[in-house]
Amino acid sequence: MTQFKPSGVITITTDLGHKGPFAGVMKGVILERFRAAAIVDLTHEIPAHWPPEAGFWLSRSYRYFPAGTVHMAIVDPGVGTERGVLLAVRDGHLFIAPDNGLLAPLLDGAGDCIVYTLDPACAACRALPAPSPTFHGRDVFAPLAAEIAAGRLQPRDTGRPTTAWTPGWIDDPVIGNGRVSGVIVTVDAFGNLISNIEGGMLQGIDRPLVRLAGRNFELHTTYGRTEPGSYLALINSFGVLEIARAEGNAADGLGSDRGAPVVVSSRPASS
Amino acid sequence: MTQFKPSGVITITTDLGHKGPFAGVMKGVILERFRAAAIVDLTHEIPAHWPPEAGFWLSRSYRYFPAGTVHMAIVDPGVGTERGVLLAVRDGHLFIAPDNGLLAPLLDGAGDCIVYTLDPACAACRALPAPSPTFHGRDVFAPLAAEIAAGRLQPRDTGRPTTAWTPGWIDDPVIGNGRVSGVIVTVDAFGNLISNIEGGMLQGIDRPLVRLAGRNFELHTTYGRTEPGSYLALINSFGVLEIARAEGNAADGLGSDRGAPVVVSSRPASS
Amino acid sequence: MTQFKPSGVITITTDLGHKGPFAGVMKGVILERFRAAAIVDLTHEIPAHWPPEAGFWLSRSYRYFPAGTVHMAIVDPGVGTERGVLLAVRDGHLFIAPDNGLLAPLLDGAGDCIVYTLDPACAACRALPAPSPTFHGRDVFAPLAAEIAAGRLQPRDTGRPTTAWTPGWIDDPVIGNGRVSGVIVTVDAFGNLISNIEGGMLQGIDRPLVRLAGRNFELHTTYGRTEPGSYLALINSFGVLEIARAEGNAADGLGSDRGAPVVVSSRPASS
Repeated sequence: MTQFKPSGVITITTDLGHKGPFAGVMKGVILERFRAAAIVDLTHEIPAHWPPEAGFWLSRSYRYFPAGTVHMAIVDPGVGTERGVLLAVRDGHLFIAPDNGLLAPLLDGAGDCIVYTLDPACAACRALPAPSPTFHGRDVFAPLAAEIAAGRLQPRDTGRPTTAWTPGWIDDPVIGNGRVSGVIVTVDAFGNLISNIEGGMLQGIDRPLVRLAGRNFELHTTYGRTEPGSYLALINSFGVLEIARAEGNAADGLGSDRGAPVVVSSRPASS
Repeated sequence: MTQFKPSGVITITTDLGHKGPFAGVMKGVILERFRAAAIVDLTHEIPAHWPPEAGFWLSRSYRYFPAGTVHMAIVDPGVGTERGVLLAVRDGHLFIAPDNGLLAPLLDGAGDCIVYTLDPACAACRALPAPSPTFHGRDVFAPLAAEIAAGRLQPRDTGRPTTAWTPGWIDDPVIGNGRVSGVIVTVDAFGNLISNIEGGMLQGIDRPLVRLAGRNFELHTTYGRTEPGSYLALINSFGVLEIARAEGNAADGLGSDRGAPVVVSSRPASS
Repeated sequence: MTQFKPSGVITITTDLGHKGPFAGVMKGVILERFRAAAIVDLTHEIPAHWPPEAGFWLSRSYRYFPAGTVHMAIVDPGVGTERGVLLAVRDGHLFIAPDNGLLAPLLDGAGDCIVYTLDPACAACRALPAPSPTFHGRDVFAPLAAEIAAGRLQPRDTGRPTTAWTPGWIDDPVIGNGRVSGVIVTVDAFGNLISNIEGGMLQGIDRPLVRLAGRNFELHTTYGRTEPGSYLALINSFGVLEIARAEGNAADGLGSDRGAPVVVSSRPASS
């Protein structure tokens, strides 16, 4: 079993927003234990109580951080109940999250993952103060992340290996019959509608046309390739299909939001 | 008089929001003087011009940071007038804030505090550039915090000790006759309504029932102990009474906001 | 040609907001290349696709950071098209931004600037992975900023010197005939309306009166010099004219926003 080699970088992903001291105190707890940590907010604006967006973004973002980064994700409506906690090692990165489906986009189909389920009776956990029943991000995840990032604790010493975890909340895209059907997973600050359809899934589709909210969209390479105000589709910088409006807000303009179905198929021969 | 032993960590709490460079330039000023500082945003979303929430959160959060942390709080509607500046040492932490009631939740009744009122003629202040009349966070608080966090300046060298400060803006809860009356101090990003009633204040109350906005709420240990959509009360992770809605938004659902009165009393014997 | 001497500090200014991992992954890319970087968010809430506010704030903020700071600004509606990238050295600070007018407030009339236009065929650029066509902040700006901040790359090695850049989007104030005419550039979180009229431009104006949205405003030194709720004008902490409402929101109260014209003239003799 390989060693996890920490880089000292820790990322935090939550639905806590920026009101109140919630993200701040997690950083205090980390710095108390590991003063040299480099802590990066991935985002604190995951929709409240909705783990799948956290897993979606983490799975698409972690490669941009140094190997050895510890990624904490806390979207945790079941905090304080019997839900478990997972620690997963993949590609030299460590992920800590509640076992509520959040990590499924990172774990499903990734043969090279090692996943542990946290044992509250493990030595590392016994050394923690009694956690509050409502903020494990501060009381459990942050101290564990700090100890691991500081190189004083290995993931394998936190619990037992597992191959069973809560499934993801969003179905994978359906591919076949010359079409790909997926769903809008999230909307960014520009109003770009971001789907779970990966660019590679469109390989078999000749002259692809994207359909959302009863409208068709052409595939372009970047926003500036159309006139301001025009709608377009593109494979975005995280490798997935996105519907955008050049210098505008596609979500507002189309009245679409996360959950909206997206279909890509071949353009009819006559068009 | 004891030395303040800095950890090199500095927290910032403001009502400046995230638009514009206001929080950023304070960090620039700190890094100019103390390149090794670890700077943590506690929050920049205190309601505009409303110091009591800053003091409330600071008093409940500082323990999660390393001893020796310097906490700057700037909610400062009186900036540039004759209002004073306080530097307070408590439990090995240092707090810097305008003398406008902000620090009252930290100072009132804390016998172990040492509080100084900043002397604009002190050597440390004379060494600063002339401050703008409207942004002392950048021009006064940030350089002082950096010098103290870097170990080059002691709080006692910034002014004279004082035992008089502006009182807090929120009355303490009233306890007696089998009931506790308090107030909602803040609402978090989930819409949880957070009061100033501490868990320990409920000790004498048998079978407590929480009343807010004409409704009664049961006390639970955590959100997941009720059905999604149900309202509940709990002692939250910062030790105070909170009214929440499981996987929902209590503030929106109840039409309540900060300032709303909360009463806890015993459940009637018949119920 | 002088050496750029990096401080190891990097600031980031964008219109990416706080939803999604966009700012976070830029920091990951920087830390991957330069683990000791001190990264400061100047702001991520520039209005979408509107470069001039980024340049305005950068030009007014950079002096508060240590000399040798690398300032990345990404408000980039033309990403992936033929728009160029500028690297500008001024006062010992380095600025990296798309060539779309963003940097004009920093470069126009500054005789001491050295400006380079990025050569995508330069050695530093050839060493980068192929950039996505839609997120050069992550794929081009962040790695260049990290290499320069780490002292491994000099700005002059990234391209050729230029004296031609896209002009700014906002006209400079017009001064003459006893009046100064400018425009509201941005509104801060308090609703303060911030103009491009510098304090020094008012020197020739006797008993100045500020006019905006059909109303006149007196010049004061700070917010607390009027009654709460009163409107006032002042030269703010960044040296420009601002219309504010004491403990209130001037933008909401006046129904004004960025783009609104502001005029300062002498008070009539009779008043």
